[in-house]
Amino acid sequence: MKYCSNCGKEIVKMIPEGDNIERYVCLHCNTIHYQNPKIIVGTIPIYEDKILLCKRAIEPQYGKWTIPAGFLELGERVEEGAIRETKEEANANVEIIKLQTVYSIPKISQVYLLFLAKLLDLDFSPGHETLATKLFSFEEIPWNEIAFTAVKFALKTYIDDKKNNRLEMTHVGFYPQHI
Amino acid sequence: MKYCSNCGKEIVKMIPEGDNIERYVCLHCNTIHYQNPKIIVGTIPIYEDKILLCKRAIEPQYGKWTIPAGFLELGERVEEGAIRETKEEANANVEIIKLQTVYSIPKISQVYLLFLAKLLDLDFSPGHETLATKLFSFEEIPWNEIAFTAVKFALKTYIDDKKNNRLEMTHVGFYPQHI
Repeated sequence: MKYCSNCGKEIVKMIPEGDNIERYVCLHCNTIHYQNPKIIVGTIPIYEDKILLCKRAIEPQYGKWTIPAGFLELGERVEEGAIRETKEEANANVEIIKLQTVYSIPKISQVYLLFLAKLLDLDFSPGHETLATKLFSFEEIPWNEIAFTAVKFALKTYIDDKKNNRLEMTHVGFYPQHI
Repeated sequence: MKYCSNCGKEIVKMIPEGDNIERYVCLHCNTIHYQNPKIIVGTIPIYEDKILLCKRAIEPQYGKWTIPAGFLELGERVEEGAIRETKEEANANVEIIKLQTVYSIPKISQVYLLFLAKLLDLDFSPGHETLATKLFSFEEIPWNEIAFTAVKFALKTYIDDKKNNRLEMTHVGFYPQHI
């Protein structure tokens, strides 16, 4: 960030009065440009004990497997965003069951909210950012080919919960502790 | 947003190629300025069946009661942010117990993540943005003087869970349905 998005003049980095963190500040129009972590929403779509995964057609992690997920948009609630991303990436229709995990990656200021969801039918197919969509049994999950630590954490906590009949829990994790 | 924060030139609102949502785009340096919902983190600090509330010293909702909460900062994980806000607003020391609620307010693109927390001692006092800090029993909570719907939702779900001995659950709600 170099210029003020409000007036177009150059900005400076400074600690505003009453604050204790450096912000981008415009000394011309006095706008403080706060920056905030981003939310990624997605689902673990379940169909008869199988999990729908998507093979990524874009960077980062091209060719790796993931669950359908992406950035929450303005004006969306978190479940809505998760359902939309599932539709966009896998053309899949899901119904939210519960929030499976909240996973922070402070190094890149991202917070994942990943929901367990019921895959409503087998009418799924790759979206524009996906090479392939496929149902995996727990044993078939390609752990070494999973794209993101947040996704690994979500899948592992779900499988553990399922085995231990603890299906109401939401798990809070973060990188690098919960890889 | 009127000017590009990268090059300072005027921006336009348009749907970029491969997208389906209008974004602020700079046609000079080709930067797409995505905008994202903001995360608010906070705690419900519990001490022997009482809840610590803060009387707001700032707008919006000056003079109303709330739980300690505020915007998540870059580089923070969600629990860290919740603990920091509790310290800033109530000078209170807490330990996270679990994620109590996730609450979306799509109209203003905010997502609250509110944690149940154990208040570790009685050494609390108002921070700069707080007029008063006080422990309330469930019966004493000033429901008509609570500042935000997300906070009401978090307090109500916690009290319900406590009464029904369902202390592991995380509740997902949104405005206007869950007021």
